[in-house]
Formats: sequence, structure tokens, C-alpha cells
Amino acid sequence: MKMLINVPETVVADALRGLAAAYPDLNVDVENRVIVRRDAPVSGQVALVSGGGSGHEPLHGGFVGPGMLSAACPGEVFTSPVPDQMARAAAAVDSGAGVLFVVKNYTGDVLNFDMAAELAEDEGIQVAKVLVDDDVAVTDSLYTAGRRGTGATLFVEKIAGAAAAEGQPLERVEAIGRQVNGNSRSFGVALSACTTPAKGSPTFDLPDGELELGIGIHGEPGRERRPMMTSGEIADFAVNAILEDMPPRSPVLVLVNGMGATPLLELYGFNAEVQRVLRERGVAVARTLVGNYVTSLDMAGASVTLCQADEELLRLWDAPVKTPALRWGM
Amino acid sequence: MKMLINVPETVVADALRGLAAAYPDLNVDVENRVIVRRDAPVSGQVALVSGGGSGHEPLHGGFVGPGMLSAACPGEVFTSPVPDQMARAAAAVDSGAGVLFVVKNYTGDVLNFDMAAELAEDEGIQVAKVLVDDDVAVTDSLYTAGRRGTGATLFVEKIAGAAAAEGQPLERVEAIGRQVNGNSRSFGVALSACTTPAKGSPTFDLPDGELELGIGIHGEPGRERRPMMTSGEIADFAVNAILEDMPPRSPVLVLVNGMGATPLLELYGFNAEVQRVLRERGVAVARTLVGNYVTSLDMAGASVTLCQADEELLRLWDAPVKTPALRWGM
Repeated sequence: MKMLINVPETVVADALRGLAAAYPDLNVDVENRVIVRRDAPVSGQVALVSGGGSGHEPLHGGFVGPGMLSAACPGEVFTSPVPDQMARAAAAVDSGAGVLFVVKNYTGDVLNFDMAAELAEDEGIQVAKVLVDDDVAVTDSLYTAGRRGTGATLFVEKIAGAAAAEGQPLERVEAIGRQVNGNSRSFGVALSACTTPAKGSPTFDLPDGELELGIGIHGEPGRERRPMMTSGEIADFAVNAILEDMPPRSPVLVLVNGMGATPLLELYGFNAEVQRVLRERGVAVARTLVGNYVTSLDMAGASVTLCQADEELLRLWDAPVKTPALRWGM
Repeated sequence: MKMLINVPETVVADALRGLAAAYPDLNVDVENRVIVRRDAPVSGQVALVSGGGSGHEPLHGGFVGPGMLSAACPGEVFTSPVPDQMARAAAAVDSGAGVLFVVKNYTGDVLNFDMAAELAEDEGIQVAKVLVDDDVAVTDSLYTAGRRGTGATLFVEKIAGAAAAEGQPLERVEAIGRQVNGNSRSFGVALSACTTPAKGSPTFDLPDGELELGIGIHGEPGRERRPMMTSGEIADFAVNAILEDMPPRSPVLVLVNGMGATPLLELYGFNAEVQRVLRERGVAVARTLVGNYVTSLDMAGASVTLCQADEELLRLWDAPVKTPALRWGM
């Protein structure tokens, strides 16, 4: 499997150097693997810190900036960052108003963010935590007790980040983050496996002519494997799986997310089918985002995330944001 | 080859429906295949119209909006749009200040935009044209007399679009577009071929362990094929090919562009190497953009575009823009 890399050992460090060169608004500590918005700490504002294994770019480093994350800690590919990284990030961004950890529900991330919270609290930093577990495809998985955290991470980081930027207190920012996670559900499909730089060959075998329904963002097995389906059939399956779990009571935010190697031409076409299913099911759509946001290296496929958004969440979604991957209003 | 599509025949129409659903600021005529900013025509402003074959998304539809294109005409995959589309777009966006066609140098596009200009002029619309031919890899190609138009298209559309948004007259917007093209050079590499929906199998054969240097955005052959190289070696080759053709006299805008299937993790790492080469060669960098902007379906690989930017071009680059794919300052 060919990759545009030097050697597998330096993939994450190389990417951080390239991120730093492209975004002067970010302060990238390549050695310690912490990405911080350059103007942190911001006086009077709660700080948001997230992180996780690399390979899901732009998540999380591409979401650092005013109106979203204060800092991100990238681990090795598909490997949790360590508590020291997270504690270092918390110390760099805390203004005294406290720090919210946004944690995707994978065993390693959960344990390490818990340890980091203890380290940070020892330094006198007030820490709260939001766990993201939006994936309806499976109950437990290879890497999780409970549901996996996937596309909803973007909604939690954007909306809680907007609340923090308004100066809302830690308990309130945390509550909003939990509300967004509770209001969100995701379902993903893979048309191909992904290849980690270290392994150099696909993480699993997906024969030509088949797809995997309910895939995770590390190539974890999903619900079932089927003969290849059309974009419309996949949209029916994914959206119905979500709506079965969460019948929306308010208009939804829609994320149609590419897994990394699926062209935007196909993602737009898939979005058309997702919107058709929502229309048929009587679900009103408030906003739609289409693109590669929570990826799985070079996996082909897509996921759908829906988030029920009342007027307040919608207002926070629309609030200005300035990060590498999401930017509007400034 | 698996794709997230319904049937090959509806890929472009499906994508346009999905684009329309995601971006209410765009007026998408799916039947006639014209994407227009909803507030067009804008009084007192020159309008920019571009277009070309589909399969390069977000180019061009993702660049429609305030500060950039007024309209875009997508053809079938890798196939020029027809003159009627372009003339219809020109009529929809002309405010009386005239229309600038931004045309990538491919034989079909050039002929059809010329015919469209005649049609539009027959309707009393003043038309000017900028031809984009920035690819230094080959002199002529399968689809061109002269150099191919690739990544510089983004710079031309953004910078000329900013001049138009300021109310500059048609001759001046055209001159700026030509200046940007003249100041820009690109070079691309492919790690894999791309697969068109109609064909369903790769457009060319690129064995494992080899890469193609100087590839075009339709999988046209490049300069040469070599055993796989590291990211650093590729950056050396690509940047040196550009600098050999254009030794910059001012700081450059850098576009590190993914061909579609290369993960952002790799693109950031590649950017680090591109910046290293520029530093070694004494070239100052003014701004850097990294991402999938001028793609070739599911091709793996990347291209580098450099644009020499004096203070005026840099000011226009930084001016506010609000499109699906490029957005800042509003």
C-alpha cells in the first residue's frame, strides 16, 4: 500500500510540522504533541480540550481555534494520547475558568483522560468531562464498553465551544456538551478497509462487491456485511438505524461525513439520498454539513450523524468559529 | 471498484441535488447544470463564471459565493460542460458590468467557453476570458495544446473574485486573473489511478511500488514513472520542477492539494516537506492552504501550486470569501 509519507515512525510528527506551517494561529508543540490556539488562555472563558488517536484528521487538531477547541492532543495513529499530553494541554489553556475534556468513548481515551483530570486537578485546575458515544451501530465493540464516539464529536466540540466563547461557566458548558451528545446519533458504512502506516496493509478484508454496515472509525467490525448497495439503499439503512434509536422531536443538524477516500462528488450524491430519507420520514433539517471531518485514514465510505437541535443549540451552532476545518462568521 | 453512488448515469445530478441541500446560499439548477450564488446578479460587480468536467470537487461548484465565483457549470465526469450551460450562467449573473470566464486549458473547455462567449455577446453581455495553464509537468498532453490548468484555478478564482467583489471593472479583473495565472505554477504526483463511474475500473495501470510524477487531474500521463519515493523526495521533485520554471521574486501562496483519496494526515506531512524545500531554496511563504480542492475522483496523490503574490494580490487573497470550500472573513 503506497502512502505519501517518509517513514511510518514519523507520520504524526511530520503532520504536526505541516499543520503548524499552514496555520500560524495554532501553537503546535511537535515534541510534546499538543496543539493550542495561539491566544490561549483566554481570560474569563472555559477552555475545551480534546484528543485521541491520529488518523481521523481534521479531528481534533483541525478543530482548534476561537469558538471551538482550545487545545488538542494527538496520539499515535489509532492510539490514545497519554495523560501527560492532556494535562499539559489543560495547563496551557486554563484561564482559571476551568477546562472541559471532550472524550470519545474508547477504553484507552477514557482511562487516560481520567488520569489527566487527576493530574490537572492536582495543579488546581477545575476539570469537567463530556463523553461522546453516538454510534448506534453496535452496543459494545473491540475498543469500547458501550457505544463508540464518532461524528457527534464535531457537534459537541462546536456547540460547547460556542458556549465557552460566550463566557458561560464550566457547569453550563459541560451540560450543553452532554445535551448535544445525548441528542446525537451516528451510523457509518465502509466500502474499503483502511491501512495504518505501521501495518502497511488493510486492517481487515472487505471483498470487492461487499460493504460493511455499521463500521467504526478504526475499521472495527460493524453490524453486518452485505453485497454492495446503492447510495440510496445505504442512506435508507443508515438513517433508519439512527431514527429507530432516536425519533427526533426537533429539526436536526446533519453531518454527512466522508471516511477519507470517498470523493466529494460521491458524498454530495449520498447527501441527496440522506435528505430524501429524512424528508420521507418527516424529519425537518436545520443545517447540513458535508465533507471529510471524522475520518479513518484512507477508508472509503461515509457516516451520517444527526443532532436534534433546539433553538439554543442552533444558535450556538451558527455562532462564529475560526479553525482549520470549520470556519464561519470570522 | 465500489462507489457510493446510485447508477453512473445520475452521479452528477445526484451530487448537484446534494450540494443544493447542503448550501441554501446556492441556487442549483439541477436540470440545466448551473450553480449560481443566490443573490446574483450583484449590482455594479463583474461576475465570474467557471466550469469544467465533474470529478474535481470542490472545484468549481464549491467555489461559488461572495468573493469568488458567481456561477459554475459542471459537465459530466471529466467532460467539458456545453456552451448553453455557460451562456445560461452568464445571463443569470451579469449585472451589466460584464462577465469573466475562468477557463482551464483543456481543448473541450476552451472551445466551448469560446462558443459561449459568442452566445453571451449576442445577448449584449460583455465577456472576457482568463485561461489557466499552470502545470509545468508537460508541454502538451492528451487533452491540451499547451500546459494543463490545475491548482492555479483556485488562486485565479479567489483573487479575481475578490477584485470583482470590490467593484473593479472587467478589464482590471481580467488583468488580475491573467497576472495570477502568469504568477502560478503546479506539479502533481499520483500514487494511484482514479476510477470514473462510467468505466468502473482504474483509468490507467499504476503498479504497486511505483508512482507517476507530473500527473494531470484526469489521470493523463505525466513526466515519468518511478519506484515509490518518500514524501520528502516527492516534495523535492515537485517544488524543484516548479522553481526551475519560475524562480519567485516575491513571497508565494502555497497550495498543497490532495487528489481525492490521500488522507489529510499525509497531506499535512507532505506540506511539512514542501515547506522545508522552499526554506532550503530561500523562497518566502506568505500563506499556505492544505486540503482537497482540485481533485481527481478517488486518485491518491497530491499537487503543489505556488503563486508569486505581491502585496496587492496578497490583499485580495486575504479578502473575505464565503463559499462551500473556501470561507473566511464572513
